[in-house]
Amino acid sequence: MAPELERLSLNQVSVNRWSLPEAVEGCARGGLRWIGLWRDKVAACGLERSARLVRDAGLEVSSLCRGGFFPAATAAERRARVDDNRRAVDEAAALGTGVLVLVCGPAPDRDLESARRHVAEGIAEVAPYAAGAGVRLGVEPLHPMYAGDRSVVVTLAQASALAERLPPEQVGVVVDVYHVWWDPEVFGEIDRAAGRILGYHVSDWLAPPPDPLLGRGLMGDGRICLPPLRQAVEAAGYTGPIEVEIFNQAVWDLPGDDAVALIKARYLAHV
Amino acid sequence: MAPELERLSLNQVSVNRWSLPEAVEGCARGGLRWIGLWRDKVAACGLERSARLVRDAGLEVSSLCRGGFFPAATAAERRARVDDNRRAVDEAAALGTGVLVLVCGPAPDRDLESARRHVAEGIAEVAPYAAGAGVRLGVEPLHPMYAGDRSVVVTLAQASALAERLPPEQVGVVVDVYHVWWDPEVFGEIDRAAGRILGYHVSDWLAPPPDPLLGRGLMGDGRICLPPLRQAVEAAGYTGPIEVEIFNQAVWDLPGDDAVALIKARYLAHV
Repeated sequence: MAPELERLSLNQVSVNRWSLPEAVEGCARGGLRWIGLWRDKVAACGLERSARLVRDAGLEVSSLCRGGFFPAATAAERRARVDDNRRAVDEAAALGTGVLVLVCGPAPDRDLESARRHVAEGIAEVAPYAAGAGVRLGVEPLHPMYAGDRSVVVTLAQASALAERLPPEQVGVVVDVYHVWWDPEVFGEIDRAAGRILGYHVSDWLAPPPDPLLGRGLMGDGRICLPPLRQAVEAAGYTGPIEVEIFNQAVWDLPGDDAVALIKARYLAHV
Repeated sequence: MAPELERLSLNQVSVNRWSLPEAVEGCARGGLRWIGLWRDKVAACGLERSARLVRDAGLEVSSLCRGGFFPAATAAERRARVDDNRRAVDEAAALGTGVLVLVCGPAPDRDLESARRHVAEGIAEVAPYAAGAGVRLGVEPLHPMYAGDRSVVVTLAQASALAERLPPEQVGVVVDVYHVWWDPEVFGEIDRAAGRILGYHVSDWLAPPPDPLLGRGLMGDGRICLPPLRQAVEAAGYTGPIEVEIFNQAVWDLPGDDAVALIKARYLAHV
């Protein structure tokens, strides 16, 4: 492997047409060391088989997406969400990754404050269990564009405040440039998160955004100045894998190997 | 007029199919006191004629949209933007409104920090001129979704920090729920903006957002809990008009009088 590609991880959603076995083969063919997995694709392949395929291909799993979605209208439903997060922890451990990414979930109603409290409570319930399995929870703030349907946690400041309630061995944050690039406080907040950064994800922000969900760009196609952000997470002590996570229909429509080739080239040029 | 509608202002973009004369007539027919105007529609009608139509209909102009768009690649272009803002001030004064809404503009490149500095410089240049004309500049933070193409000012904290560089007689902020509802700091920041709030705009956040630009909902159709936000701006001393500003193709496709009727009903029920 080219040493400059050693930290690149292909988040498998970037080549969404590939099944898990295809993504594993594609990473191996592309000379990558890391892969980021999604629970739905792991489930479709089977957990044990997924773990074996990854291991046999000599890959490492940078993270599993995703736990979270804690807020719910009833205590019973919130309990079910916590249980599901415990299963996600088990899956992460079986796949050999130490990081479960949390997308915290939206409010079930218009009450953001209660929903944010449910997130804190859910994390507090799952974190010790996760630590016991060798898995840390990575709170990923999502772009405020997703505040209504995906996450009431929308700033790195919020994510760190949640993480700081628990030991760094249990909970940290995931910095995804697409979600945080706009934030006037982003550099100070990355600095604050030193020792808690469990993942660094890259893509680009197209302007104007072509679509709220499938509008992420390849690095270099958009508005995000990536080098200072990478420098900041490294200055904060993060030296782990860098996941390329691109939700973009045009990228998804490419043949998988072509998408991987493009991602490698853009990573080398822009990340 | 029903006293409970006394503060409702129809931002004319909410009935985008109407020309300025049609919007003025529509407001009068609908029994409204206030209208929020846009420069392009004023220009299409003619400035003096617009001012006369508004006056003759007994309406008041809550604000003029929009100045701003300060960042640019060259000093000459930035100068041209400042000149254009001076013209916007003149137009606001001619229309009899004391508030020019600023949409601050995107970066011309990937350098958010420089662009934010250009915004501060532009405001500093325009503000004294505006005050001389009896017009205050209302810095409107836009939703971070627009950081790439419309505004590098994306939080109320940022808007207030910009405003606080100059006297409250010159510069304040505009609070639009669509742009700020997601912000964990929103209530604290509204409190901080006491004495500087120059406008309060309402609509709703649909989830998931159907479109990055034309996805605003009618009040009651989305995720924003409006009453606490109104209470907060009122507790911060704002008792002026409340603009309903809805960019939504489905609303735009309604006959104008129907849109006004719906807006009034939703205002009474939810704002």
